[in-house]
Amino acid sequence: MRYMCICKYDGTNFNGFQVQNKPFEDIRTVQGEIEKALAGVLKEETPIIYASRTDEGVHAIGQVFTFDAKIDILEYNMGRAINSMLPDDIFVSKVIKVSDDFHPRYHCKMKEYHYIINLGEYDPLLRNYMYFPRRKKLDINAMKKASKYLIGKHNFKSFCKSSDITNYEREIYEIKLEKKEDVLTVKIKGNGFLRHMVRILVAMLLEVGVSNYSPQDLKSILEQKNRRFAPKILPSSGLYLFKVFYDEEMLKKP
Amino acid sequence: MRYMCICKYDGTNFNGFQVQNKPFEDIRTVQGEIEKALAGVLKEETPIIYASRTDEGVHAIGQVFTFDAKIDILEYNMGRAINSMLPDDIFVSKVIKVSDDFHPRYHCKMKEYHYIINLGEYDPLLRNYMYFPRRKKLDINAMKKASKYLIGKHNFKSFCKSSDITNYEREIYEIKLEKKEDVLTVKIKGNGFLRHMVRILVAMLLEVGVSNYSPQDLKSILEQKNRRFAPKILPSSGLYLFKVFYDEEMLKKP
Repeated sequence: MRYMCICKYDGTNFNGFQVQNKPFEDIRTVQGEIEKALAGVLKEETPIIYASRTDEGVHAIGQVFTFDAKIDILEYNMGRAINSMLPDDIFVSKVIKVSDDFHPRYHCKMKEYHYIINLGEYDPLLRNYMYFPRRKKLDINAMKKASKYLIGKHNFKSFCKSSDITNYEREIYEIKLEKKEDVLTVKIKGNGFLRHMVRILVAMLLEVGVSNYSPQDLKSILEQKNRRFAPKILPSSGLYLFKVFYDEEMLKKP
Repeated sequence: MRYMCICKYDGTNFNGFQVQNKPFEDIRTVQGEIEKALAGVLKEETPIIYASRTDEGVHAIGQVFTFDAKIDILEYNMGRAINSMLPDDIFVSKVIKVSDDFHPRYHCKMKEYHYIINLGEYDPLLRNYMYFPRRKKLDINAMKKASKYLIGKHNFKSFCKSSDITNYEREIYEIKLEKKEDVLTVKIKGNGFLRHMVRILVAMLLEVGVSNYSPQDLKSILEQKNRRFAPKILPSSGLYLFKVFYDEEMLKKP
């Protein structure tokens, strides 16, 4: 029986999502903690498959993972059992039984990330959950204009951590900038995101917001396909994996 | 020159406010961090006087402390200098020059504490900042009715940590219960609070909310003057020192 779980976590005290093959026992990862909890519930080693690898300090509202278990129990009870074994910074909010060929990455249709910027006075109680930029006055219209150049299929090599991958093409479907009092949330939907891509893209939009760059500059940096021209990455504290989308069909019970 | 500071902190990673005379170097307190920062700014040991001792894990939105310095500089600049030396979980939001006889405890007129209860689903991102009770359905009208018995001057021995103090009388001026969606905030104003008092009082109100006790039971427990009869203390995560009040006169510049 394959179970799909939707989970939330506070990324602050994790070294990212993925278990790392390093000789350090004390590297705490979300995947590691989930697999430990599942071993406790199912009394055997239970590897998970996840939808999205999030980096150190990045939060999730709707991360998705699957695992296989011999037992077939009610979804609600499986969720309760896992939560009873998880540390308090991870929480499974939903469990769905799926067919045995469901794969959280291959069948993913779209992902949505949020980046939260607080333009008010620094607040130590929110320091791990938002980004407080130094410059608080933003030209949000210019940022919106700039964001239009990102929509569609592009080679995002300028806006990601260089690595040994060969395909830098991704498609962005939508970027929304929503401001409520001092809090500006950048919501990005796309078919997939390269390493560090959301945080570098939002950094670029912020540079446009403080008029260090024009919206057209963003377009030319995108076309350069060179990381050197894009600004420094923003901190992980503001980033949330908000939702992973699948076709309804895929989530039908087996 | 005496400076008064209003500060915010995230209590999560502190062993309370007050420096403890223990032989452990690694006990991290708010006072300790502030005095370290002041020593850095003023280049000499600078003890502070604080308004309210908060316990381990308790947050502050409006804690007050004073210190004396030989230099007389602009309040805004003093604030910036202190913040540049403070760790990121403490922040001075305001500095006011006061007269040399101003004392943050003796001249305090009223204190306001907030306790935040989240009646929605557990959220790992809010775990350090709210309390998530198991039972989510509360009779808020009964809680409001019960809270009326607490208003006025009372001996609060039933609702505090027993210690060697002799005067258990305090006056509560106002208790408000405000619910916004799933979040219930209990706001308490009084002339002073005993150790653990707010968290035990809110625990008692919650017991009334889930009908384990009636509002009249609260009244009789108050009259018993015995800690045994009151419920277990609530966790510190939900508690905030919200504001310390002084007469406007006292805060006039010297």
